[in-house]
Amino acid sequence: MKKNTVYIAKSLDGFISGKNGTLDWLESVPNPAQEDMGYSVFMKEIDAIVMGRNTFETVLNFDIDWPYTQHVFVLSRTLSEVPEDLRQKITILSGTPQEVLDEIHRREYFRLYIDGGVTIQRFVAENLIDEFRITTFPILLGEGAPLFGPLSEPLRLAYVRSDVYLGQLVHDVYRKIG
Amino acid sequence: MKKNTVYIAKSLDGFISGKNGTLDWLESVPNPAQEDMGYSVFMKEIDAIVMGRNTFETVLNFDIDWPYTQHVFVLSRTLSEVPEDLRQKITILSGTPQEVLDEIHRREYFRLYIDGGVTIQRFVAENLIDEFRITTFPILLGEGAPLFGPLSEPLRLAYVRSDVYLGQLVHDVYRKIG
Repeated sequence: MKKNTVYIAKSLDGFISGKNGTLDWLESVPNPAQEDMGYSVFMKEIDAIVMGRNTFETVLNFDIDWPYTQHVFVLSRTLSEVPEDLRQKITILSGTPQEVLDEIHRREYFRLYIDGGVTIQRFVAENLIDEFRITTFPILLGEGAPLFGPLSEPLRLAYVRSDVYLGQLVHDVYRKIG
Repeated sequence: MKKNTVYIAKSLDGFISGKNGTLDWLESVPNPAQEDMGYSVFMKEIDAIVMGRNTFETVLNFDIDWPYTQHVFVLSRTLSEVPEDLRQKITILSGTPQEVLDEIHRREYFRLYIDGGVTIQRFVAENLIDEFRITTFPILLGEGAPLFGPLSEPLRLAYVRSDVYLGQLVHDVYRKIG
């Protein structure tokens, strides 16, 4: 079954990164037991990850090994080189969201994790997101990269459920209508 | 006890009104039993309402009688006339948020409902909101008047609880820390 899911953290005022791309606020709620907020369960339901170049480069710059077991499709019109050790794990694609989806489905990946601010906004603008899983941190950042962007018209969603993690993080699930 | 509360509805993408000030999306979730989402209980705990001129004029233009029993403080540097029948119910004030609060407290109103986009942003920017009660509608508007605005620095809040109304509206309560 084809399904495109957004799974992301935002501030209460709707930013996915703060001023100059800061992500330190994601550590602002103590998490001594390493609660993963449903992430590992979610990732088991995913066939592949679709992200933009910005997010790809952010992940590359994290001081960790490549974190994904699933294949990653990086959307970019300019990127041509990927690190040698990642060549089997990454495919660079470009095109409209629908063109990209058609190509990924042709390769038999169907349950997709759509990640990264610009990429999410492009998919939302074409109503191609089936499920939103949004964790809201109890902080106002005031500026940064917004999760959502302009739309040609309002888009109604269906609320599904909420979970609260660490007593402070509200994880809300919304689905596409129809 | 002094307490400044924001009680407001927003879209999932953070707007309190849509393009050209539209509020029709507030009717986008069927509400046959006129569920008031805690509003009447909340209003019983309020001594007075503080709103900006825009919100005041919006309420005046609603096709209803003046809806508030509590005294309303309208923040405006330009407004001088109010409708004759509202003169006992409204006081026009201007100044910084703290100056306005000092004046309202001097008049012995302490539990205040802070309303309206610009007014809320000015009070939040000076960390003068004690409690946020935010109802999120399951809709992306794409543009409009945002609930939150720029801040001089990030502001951590404490998550308190959530309620779900009509199976679709998530009412989240946050409090000031410290």
